[in-house]
Amino acid sequence: MAWFNRIGKRYITKSSFRATDGLQAPGFSTKAVSSLLHSWSSFSVYKYSLPTINGSRAPGFPSEFLPSLLKSRFFCSVPTQNRLGPSGLRPTSPDGKARVVVLGSGWAGCRFMKGLDTDLYDVVCISPRNHMVFTPLLASTCVGTLEFRSVAEPIGRIQPAISNAPNSYFFLATCKGIDTDNHVVHCESVTDGSKSQIIEPWSFTVPYDKLVIASGAEASTFGIKGVKEHSIFLREVSHAQEIRRKLLLNLMLSDAPGISEAEKSRLLHFVVVGGGPTGVEFSGELSDFIIRDVHERYSHVKENIRVTLIEANEILSSFDDRLRQYATRHLTKSGVRLVRGVVKDVHPQKIILSDGTEVPYGLLVWSTGVGPSSFINSLQFPKSSGGRIGVDEWLRVPSVQDVFSIGDCSGFLESTGKPALPALAQVAERQGKYLASLLNQIGKAGGSHANCAQEIELGSPFVYKHLGSMATVGRYKALVDLRQSKEGKGLSLAGFLSWFIWRSAYLTRVISWRNRFYVAINWATTFVFGRDISRI
Amino acid sequence: MAWFNRIGKRYITKSSFRATDGLQAPGFSTKAVSSLLHSWSSFSVYKYSLPTINGSRAPGFPSEFLPSLLKSRFFCSVPTQNRLGPSGLRPTSPDGKARVVVLGSGWAGCRFMKGLDTDLYDVVCISPRNHMVFTPLLASTCVGTLEFRSVAEPIGRIQPAISNAPNSYFFLATCKGIDTDNHVVHCESVTDGSKSQIIEPWSFTVPYDKLVIASGAEASTFGIKGVKEHSIFLREVSHAQEIRRKLLLNLMLSDAPGISEAEKSRLLHFVVVGGGPTGVEFSGELSDFIIRDVHERYSHVKENIRVTLIEANEILSSFDDRLRQYATRHLTKSGVRLVRGVVKDVHPQKIILSDGTEVPYGLLVWSTGVGPSSFINSLQFPKSSGGRIGVDEWLRVPSVQDVFSIGDCSGFLESTGKPALPALAQVAERQGKYLASLLNQIGKAGGSHANCAQEIELGSPFVYKHLGSMATVGRYKALVDLRQSKEGKGLSLAGFLSWFIWRSAYLTRVISWRNRFYVAINWATTFVFGRDISRI
Repeated sequence: MAWFNRIGKRYITKSSFRATDGLQAPGFSTKAVSSLLHSWSSFSVYKYSLPTINGSRAPGFPSEFLPSLLKSRFFCSVPTQNRLGPSGLRPTSPDGKARVVVLGSGWAGCRFMKGLDTDLYDVVCISPRNHMVFTPLLASTCVGTLEFRSVAEPIGRIQPAISNAPNSYFFLATCKGIDTDNHVVHCESVTDGSKSQIIEPWSFTVPYDKLVIASGAEASTFGIKGVKEHSIFLREVSHAQEIRRKLLLNLMLSDAPGISEAEKSRLLHFVVVGGGPTGVEFSGELSDFIIRDVHERYSHVKENIRVTLIEANEILSSFDDRLRQYATRHLTKSGVRLVRGVVKDVHPQKIILSDGTEVPYGLLVWSTGVGPSSFINSLQFPKSSGGRIGVDEWLRVPSVQDVFSIGDCSGFLESTGKPALPALAQVAERQGKYLASLLNQIGKAGGSHANCAQEIELGSPFVYKHLGSMATVGRYKALVDLRQSKEGKGLSLAGFLSWFIWRSAYLTRVISWRNRFYVAINWATTFVFGRDISRI
Repeated sequence: MAWFNRIGKRYITKSSFRATDGLQAPGFSTKAVSSLLHSWSSFSVYKYSLPTINGSRAPGFPSEFLPSLLKSRFFCSVPTQNRLGPSGLRPTSPDGKARVVVLGSGWAGCRFMKGLDTDLYDVVCISPRNHMVFTPLLASTCVGTLEFRSVAEPIGRIQPAISNAPNSYFFLATCKGIDTDNHVVHCESVTDGSKSQIIEPWSFTVPYDKLVIASGAEASTFGIKGVKEHSIFLREVSHAQEIRRKLLLNLMLSDAPGISEAEKSRLLHFVVVGGGPTGVEFSGELSDFIIRDVHERYSHVKENIRVTLIEANEILSSFDDRLRQYATRHLTKSGVRLVRGVVKDVHPQKIILSDGTEVPYGLLVWSTGVGPSSFINSLQFPKSSGGRIGVDEWLRVPSVQDVFSIGDCSGFLESTGKPALPALAQVAERQGKYLASLLNQIGKAGGSHANCAQEIELGSPFVYKHLGSMATVGRYKALVDLRQSKEGKGLSLAGFLSWFIWRSAYLTRVISWRNRFYVAINWATTFVFGRDISRI
């Protein structure tokens, strides 16, 4: 097979095909060439999948065969499929639908899948979670204002083709590597989470026609020791669940007899590091929970509860001064202690600040922003500032064919002359939407298959227009900053109305009717009955 | 202190007090005697709490002091309180409210707490979970028909005094032993469940005036190897969560490329052992989930899914023949394979039946009934049949003072001539209700404190009247058997109406308005949108 591959490549080279620069040769339609290239990638997949076959010599293979090969679509797809065996998905057939592989299921990936025309493409989503998290509402779930499921949207509800189209799939897996030459991603299944039965993860490959890297970023720890081990990030539903369980555990433990005053005070000290929107929203929700629910339901321990927000600079630094002051006032009034400090070290039960202060804590939430994940670091693509995958104005990874990147894991290359975009849901969502329509346009123009899109006019590049920033500070109050940038001019408001309008606007973005309904119901029942404190 | 305890006991003996037979002596009110006995238990607590003090000789202690001691309530309570230190709750003062300690937070304990008059008693609930599980609806949560929180009721919502009365508490702990001589329970805090911070559990003591043992039973494994390790019981919300996570994991894994047909078939074989109501209800819900949701949302794997229900005898053996046939027909029609067999051995991925058949499984749910827990086994009380705590007609443990037992952990003593009651929510709930009114009556008659209830007329004993049995078989169909016993005559129905009526009736029992509302909303959204398949 490797032998055929080499022969094939040489033949192409002789015929002056330039595989990466736009496939043009007299007498060959783009589709036929695509079919040929496609058969190669299939063989390469085969090589990867069953390496023991490697090195076996193929029987005589006349060079005259190649033109007929180009005509025989049957040969291009079916035999390969049969031989491929169980360790990888089959490559698409050139006369069938092309396959878009999406890595990740966050704002960017999900919005992309939602917008993709499934008459043109099959979709394969590869992600370690089968749902999208509605991140702006995640902080509310930690204290029970909203339920976890109200902010988690199954991918199959966002793009139903995933569930019922014959060649669209969701794979619970992580991507381990990308072979751009052969248009294949290497994956490993995710099998965690069950005490009663261990399934060993296994590897498999998925060939793609178009690849969308939207695997997001990781919480940054700035290399501070102990952060990963002892603090909880607030990025996944499982994080919110852990925070809620721990919050309730500490409240209950501190009520039990036999606990010292110092230990009680430690258990009930909830510390948030990072004064960005997530940190502020969580602090706000927490203080609201304490004022409204804990004082009533854990009346024995209410005097001992403290919330501290530690930030090295100013809280909500991207917001208008006036709003920042409003937030500071509101948080302080709600009992959140704002501390300016730099964390040096995190121990199991205390934080050490750079000035030597020791801060004992019972719960530590870390939300100091995000940086590139180890997967993104491992990729050999040119990077933009901050280690993100560099993309051009059309969100393409320019060095390779058919690879795109959106969301927190990508950034404009310096050569585009565009500024790096912030790691916001808003940016990711807009990029997903843009890329879906770009790929739909490419598909309609006949460029859906691998290496077929070079000739196609891409239209206008992606332009990001910041709609404004929002953060709630608890008790149904929010800040809304509608300025285009920190220096720009524009409307900024704070209060209940802005909270209501913004949240409602957000809810119309990706989330399903079912979850919009549940969010409304959750808000209503929290308002009427208070929050749920079952520790389940 | 031990020395004082001995002296005190001797003095009482000399004065012909018969501490266990009803405290009567000329010139002493019941309350004063109670106060004295109470002070003993306090000292005993002290002894337990600070064992290093043991053996130190107390200074001269004139026997003339004792009568004045009896008058001095101050001495009985306050100094003890101050000395008691942090490792136990203080005993109640005889002129304050008495304390009822409830072990467990199931149907029995929660219904008891709900009915208890908190003007008469302080309540302390000791349980490893802070909520009651609405068990008849638990099977529905495994597949997402209902949400987990809709079937979990926080204890503080059932009995608000737990949250806000100054001397009522909930302790997240397990009871390790009962010292009936001193009216004290020994507890250990529960500190599990957090990866990011380990808190060592600690021991503490809680003195009681009345003790209600309602700690329930454990799933029986009949000594079969591997059951505990590899199967999931269906008794707690955490079990339902594990089942749901695993169900969705297996559905997703079997969709991933690279999995063999045999492994796929194993992962998608869901086996239920035990054909009682829980096993049948879970099988019914599961088949409904498969028919309605999996076929639509996991269309690639729908052909491979199988549900098998293994039962050694007949399913739903306590029900009417006609209903049993209806259930068998309905389950078979829904695709549940009913297998008569006895499980001999459970391996990580297969069950061995007694006839040697090997049954590979991807998910194993074990619901073959319950037996006494190790805690109940460790108690030195006379037992009823099946190892339960033996109680008399008033649900008292007759060998000791002020100890009651209700729910699955208790059973009538043989001497009562009454039959053992089944381990049903219905029984537990009725017992809880009865015992609450009994203790309210005792409290009103002045017998709320320890060792004070001997003279009080108890009224009519507990009589259980079986209202009927119910089991759903999926797809909004239920069996209702209103006969008093297996041999008796009475109405029995099957179908939608019975499902609706019975469920509605159940919902009015303990559950709050908030959860009734959520159950209704969950049912409605499941009906309209289908079940949620996010694996969070």
